[in-house]
Amino acid sequence: VAILFLSETDPVDEWAAALARALPGEDVRTGPAGIDGASVEFAVAWRPPAGALAALPNLRAVFSLGAGVDHVLGDPGLPANLPVVRLIDPDLTRQMTEWVVMNVLRHHRAMPDYAAQQAEGLWREIAVPPARERRVGIMGLGVLGGAAATALVSFGFALAAWVRSRRPWPLGELFAGQEGLGPFLARTDILVCLLPLTAETRGILDGRAFAALPPGAAVINAARGGHLVEADLIAALESGKLSAATLDVFADEPLPPPHPFWRHPRITVTPHVAAVTRPECAAREIAANIRRCRAGGPMRGTVDRRRGY
Amino acid sequence: VAILFLSETDPVDEWAAALARALPGEDVRTGPAGIDGASVEFAVAWRPPAGALAALPNLRAVFSLGAGVDHVLGDPGLPANLPVVRLIDPDLTRQMTEWVVMNVLRHHRAMPDYAAQQAEGLWREIAVPPARERRVGIMGLGVLGGAAATALVSFGFALAAWVRSRRPWPLGELFAGQEGLGPFLARTDILVCLLPLTAETRGILDGRAFAALPPGAAVINAARGGHLVEADLIAALESGKLSAATLDVFADEPLPPPHPFWRHPRITVTPHVAAVTRPECAAREIAANIRRCRAGGPMRGTVDRRRGY
Repeated sequence: VAILFLSETDPVDEWAAALARALPGEDVRTGPAGIDGASVEFAVAWRPPAGALAALPNLRAVFSLGAGVDHVLGDPGLPANLPVVRLIDPDLTRQMTEWVVMNVLRHHRAMPDYAAQQAEGLWREIAVPPARERRVGIMGLGVLGGAAATALVSFGFALAAWVRSRRPWPLGELFAGQEGLGPFLARTDILVCLLPLTAETRGILDGRAFAALPPGAAVINAARGGHLVEADLIAALESGKLSAATLDVFADEPLPPPHPFWRHPRITVTPHVAAVTRPECAAREIAANIRRCRAGGPMRGTVDRRRGY
Repeated sequence: VAILFLSETDPVDEWAAALARALPGEDVRTGPAGIDGASVEFAVAWRPPAGALAALPNLRAVFSLGAGVDHVLGDPGLPANLPVVRLIDPDLTRQMTEWVVMNVLRHHRAMPDYAAQQAEGLWREIAVPPARERRVGIMGLGVLGGAAATALVSFGFALAAWVRSRRPWPLGELFAGQEGLGPFLARTDILVCLLPLTAETRGILDGRAFAALPPGAAVINAARGGHLVEADLIAALESGKLSAATLDVFADEPLPPPHPFWRHPRITVTPHVAAVTRPECAAREIAANIRRCRAGGPMRGTVDRRRGY
């Protein structure tokens, strides 16, 4: 039996070495070429080609290289009962927390405006409210959203979160479901998207959402490009409804050179690096799940395929 | 008796109103014109003109509008035994913590490089070590440095501090005194200056200090412009010894339009806004000290004038 690594964009050799170290004695293969599909017990995948997983009849689970699984669930040939496991990795969580806190602070402290002023040689203080009056809103309270919230609350921000279904949440105001979305947006100065990409959340950052935000709000997207209606963001920035945006993910990645986001004065672009899976750390988590699976126990991060996360 | 507000750069009316609210029934004056110097019991000052405090014979204390007192101690006519009180204000501390954490994260997560890449339309991941391998070094562990350290340690950075005299410090490695400076710098990837400006610390961020840092280190100055030898910073950035710098304070403020910092691709400039005194918050702290003084008790933040902070 073998463990198959499937990604066209990740460093194959580094992954193979990390998986081999985390799973001593196992047969780790990288890519479908020359492998007997029936021998593959587990797949470790990022954007697997459509049908690739269906060609592995004895597959017991597929592990995502990231926190999201949309890139696996999008395969129409995905075997019906195959467990799909997202990556829950303290290293990934820590990176995302850093990135979100950094960017919430950047928007809170008017850094995009100060950067514009620096380009003009302009020395001028920009009034900024105290953190307790700055309303930060997080969409999604999974592992990543929850960790970001915990870090943000220590700065004293007025925190709220929007989730699918109501639950107790001690860190701020909780809004749930479709009827909670408008009120959540209306009280949010800095919006952070950390949602899973599902049929329900695709395009959720659209013109209607931006219209519901208070004037001058900022938008931070660290989830998936599919959450954002890109043309609506440009329009909301042009109209002055939104003040700025910081985006790590895009409908098309790499973001194509002619894309207007690259040169937009109010958009900060990072190349999908908010939380970069480190093979060494992730392989440990995946190995632990493989051991759990073989021991007949539940794996950590198995997604509800119907729900999409 | 009167309380005299003395600043040419702060919003006088807002300050007068805040002081009046914090000190009901007191005679709050703004500026020396038309006031009987002998009637002034306390001064609240930012960069008071040389000799201005000496003209107030019954002055019991002078309160700085900021955490630093260098702008008061620099007056050669400062009465010898006049208590000089720095501002200790939770609001100021919170702002500085935000600014320092934001900028440490910016340098940790290579944001200046990503900004440069965005300007070129370049999609390329920059390798970044995990926080536990990122060596952050704080110069100064006063109220501001201590609060920044507490916030930074929660991100898991490898933290060290450099102080004047050895003391117990649970958050990281402590280096003290002149002999500790070299070893402190040699282990510091991201240097944060939060020192008071004194005869001993003036020009401490110079070519020798930069040479002692590891290659590619970043420098963040949120203390005083006088700590930095500006030409040495430019040279260290040009030579590639330093990777980047973020500066909030300058030898000359406002930073003059022709100054090379404005347009340097590896320097981020903010206009002395890391921690902006809010009159409402600061007036409360100053009022509490006035009450302590009148009650014969010690004030909070009285500086050791010989030491300079």
